[in-house]
Amino acid sequence: MGYHFSDLTDACQNDWRAYIEHDFVRSLGDGSLDPAAFRHYLQQDYLFLIHFSRAYALAAYKSHDLAELRHAFEGLKTILDVELGLHVGFCREWGISEDDLAKLPEARATLAYTRYVLDTGSRGDLLDLHVALAPCLVGYGEIANWLNTRRETVRGDNNPFDAWIAMYESDDFQGAMQDEVAWLDARLAEVTPERFARLTSIFRDATRLEIDFWQMGLDRAD
Amino acid sequence: MGYHFSDLTDACQNDWRAYIEHDFVRSLGDGSLDPAAFRHYLQQDYLFLIHFSRAYALAAYKSHDLAELRHAFEGLKTILDVELGLHVGFCREWGISEDDLAKLPEARATLAYTRYVLDTGSRGDLLDLHVALAPCLVGYGEIANWLNTRRETVRGDNNPFDAWIAMYESDDFQGAMQDEVAWLDARLAEVTPERFARLTSIFRDATRLEIDFWQMGLDRAD
Amino acid sequence: MGYHFSDLTDACQNDWRAYIEHDFVRSLGDGSLDPAAFRHYLQQDYLFLIHFSRAYALAAYKSHDLAELRHAFEGLKTILDVELGLHVGFCREWGISEDDLAKLPEARATLAYTRYVLDTGSRGDLLDLHVALAPCLVGYGEIANWLNTRRETVRGDNNPFDAWIAMYESDDFQGAMQDEVAWLDARLAEVTPERFARLTSIFRDATRLEIDFWQMGLDRAD
Amino acid sequence: MGYHFSDLTDACQNDWRAYIEHDFVRSLGDGSLDPAAFRHYLQQDYLFLIHFSRAYALAAYKSHDLAELRHAFEGLKTILDVELGLHVGFCREWGISEDDLAKLPEARATLAYTRYVLDTGSRGDLLDLHVALAPCLVGYGEIANWLNTRRETVRGDNNPFDAWIAMYESDDFQGAMQDEVAWLDARLAEVTPERFARLTSIFRDATRLEIDFWQMGLDRAD
Repeated sequence: MGYHFSDLTDACQNDWRAYIEHDFVRSLGDGSLDPAAFRHYLQQDYLFLIHFSRAYALAAYKSHDLAELRHAFEGLKTILDVELGLHVGFCREWGISEDDLAKLPEARATLAYTRYVLDTGSRGDLLDLHVALAPCLVGYGEIANWLNTRRETVRGDNNPFDAWIAMYESDDFQGAMQDEVAWLDARLAEVTPERFARLTSIFRDATRLEIDFWQMGLDRAD
Repeated sequence: MGYHFSDLTDACQNDWRAYIEHDFVRSLGDGSLDPAAFRHYLQQDYLFLIHFSRAYALAAYKSHDLAELRHAFEGLKTILDVELGLHVGFCREWGISEDDLAKLPEARATLAYTRYVLDTGSRGDLLDLHVALAPCLVGYGEIANWLNTRRETVRGDNNPFDAWIAMYESDDFQGAMQDEVAWLDARLAEVTPERFARLTSIFRDATRLEIDFWQMGLDRAD
Repeated sequence: MGYHFSDLTDACQNDWRAYIEHDFVRSLGDGSLDPAAFRHYLQQDYLFLIHFSRAYALAAYKSHDLAELRHAFEGLKTILDVELGLHVGFCREWGISEDDLAKLPEARATLAYTRYVLDTGSRGDLLDLHVALAPCLVGYGEIANWLNTRRETVRGDNNPFDAWIAMYESDDFQGAMQDEVAWLDARLAEVTPERFARLTSIFRDATRLEIDFWQMGLDRAD
Repeated sequence: MGYHFSDLTDACQNDWRAYIEHDFVRSLGDGSLDPAAFRHYLQQDYLFLIHFSRAYALAAYKSHDLAELRHAFEGLKTILDVELGLHVGFCREWGISEDDLAKLPEARATLAYTRYVLDTGSRGDLLDLHVALAPCLVGYGEIANWLNTRRETVRGDNNPFDAWIAMYESDDFQGAMQDEVAWLDARLAEVTPERFARLTSIFRDATRLEIDFWQMGLDRAD
């Protein structure tokens, strides 16, 4: 017993690095990413956010007390009242109208990751759900930090994707990420080895589906 | 086809009147209600609100598009950011501390109605869920209006429960109630007779469990 | 850590005894129960079994591996392929036709307990669900055993309810009950004190709702 | 109003043909399929069946009456008591032991389709769930029939995959498929155009994820 979130990333080291250091991420960092690939990613990420909202709503529904309920609600509120608006604005800057967004077909990689998260949460408990969400919430913060350690990364006006990195290195996002790790650490401290093995399997599958999400962007796959 | 919300209350007329015109309601209206019964009701209504929040979270999770998601979210936000605070304040005025509220055991009538609503929503779709919630949301508004038609009803400082009536006759609440009826009317217009029969059964059971909730208050039942 | 199922009954001793030794049970044991009360109970128990089936189906849906899935499936199969048929036969002997059963309105006590179990399972995990089911599955076996220890209990042709006691003292039912206790013991051995407190609250609420189910029979309440 | 199942396949004609006539299917039909590809497919199909069981359990949980409950239960029973055993035997003939099956990692295409079906069912109602399952249940029967119309298809001992075709052309399977189409036709007859559009979107996404499942076999993708 006495597990931490870092035990999950350690247990899935190959998949975790393949996700954090994906070619999509690298080329976004050095500014060489095909803008069409970025646009495809942005569009699908909009659909992703809608299902992400559903996942937080599911967490609220499954809460055992008012504190858990408020915790999930704050996550949902952040997505619906803040992030979706930012995302729509971001899309607009990249030439994608809200009308385009409303008509998007969902790519397979979006279907796969979002529904995996939702089924994991519906089938299991709040901890299962949070572990399935962690590659996204914690991973994006870690990706911004990793990019900032790389010599190849270009920041400022010379990188058209600079605003993306700025968003995930921001104090707001990094704070949310640290809160999530703390929440997970508190619960992982008490799970049995058998449960940890199951959570590892969830974390690995979710990370693999995040890798596919990057790849979908690169391939502009539907 | 072409049903309206009023067809539900018409189909359950006896139960609906027994709920709207319950002795708890009448004595609350004329000021003769035992304050201990009102306090018991207020305490259980606090627990009720927590599960009501879960029901709106469930509606958000089950939404099919962003419009449905935002609609459910606004309901959830109203409960968690507004109503719960008002309720806690109201309880304080009646001598019930937030600490008391946190330690309350749930009365059977609270368990029964809230879990019936939640199971109905989980088992069925958004319309099933809204129909199960309607006796509460629409009923409380109708109760305030009915009390205001009664000669026996006492308003103002001579009725210790005046603030309760004021809350549900308020423009805010009456507006929310009318929106809900409009939402239901739009969907009921398109259901088949077989589906309407099933929705009637949900509406009747939910109304019966609301009657029990009043009775629990009167009896101070646990 | 290291909890057992008996810790749940110990923690809820008053409610547990009130359930096991309820007047409905006592008078069923000594043969003095009003046949109309028994018939009312039998009818509602039929509706109960349908939702009990839904609870086992929910357990199957929430399973994490094939072993858990088969375990839940065997429970579901027993209800649908064996118990429902026995129950319908039993009802027939007491003058209740299958046609009557199909048209029954659900009593409040039936709504309350069944929906509480289903919401508990949907909100939580398999252990939450099994703990909510335990007052029924384990309790009925324990009731048969307790009746057999009482001097007042009448067995054989002099007690019109003898077949009911025989059903729950049978090796089949007692075996199923012991399996369930073993399943619960294995899982309770590993829960934290905080989790155990939550499970105790589920077990107590479920037991209270079982008490209401007996009372509903006695009162022939709808 | 007045839709039929064939309206769904008509509305998704390109995806539906791409699924039914996929290269995996063609080469299975003419015997040229790489046995390693078939083995990979068989392994993942085993994991698929487990989640398929969960989908039928979900249908049982969401049932509104005993008839719906028994209908879902019969589906579940067929998978757990018949199909899984047949599948394990089939795997054995292809050199895959039950021990291998128990340790398989789930391929992305398996995660994607199964979780999509399960989330669709949990989010919506029984009809949504059945429409998401239809590409599998109806599609496999249609594939067997299509193969039998092709000159290129080889039957008998000269095709190592002959038993696979035989399974899905069998009276048992074709009967189950026709029952499912009849069930869907009865419900689609009563849906509104708006609902039909949403069901079409579910059917299309599920079909696309089935295409990926064939492709995963061909590519031996993980």
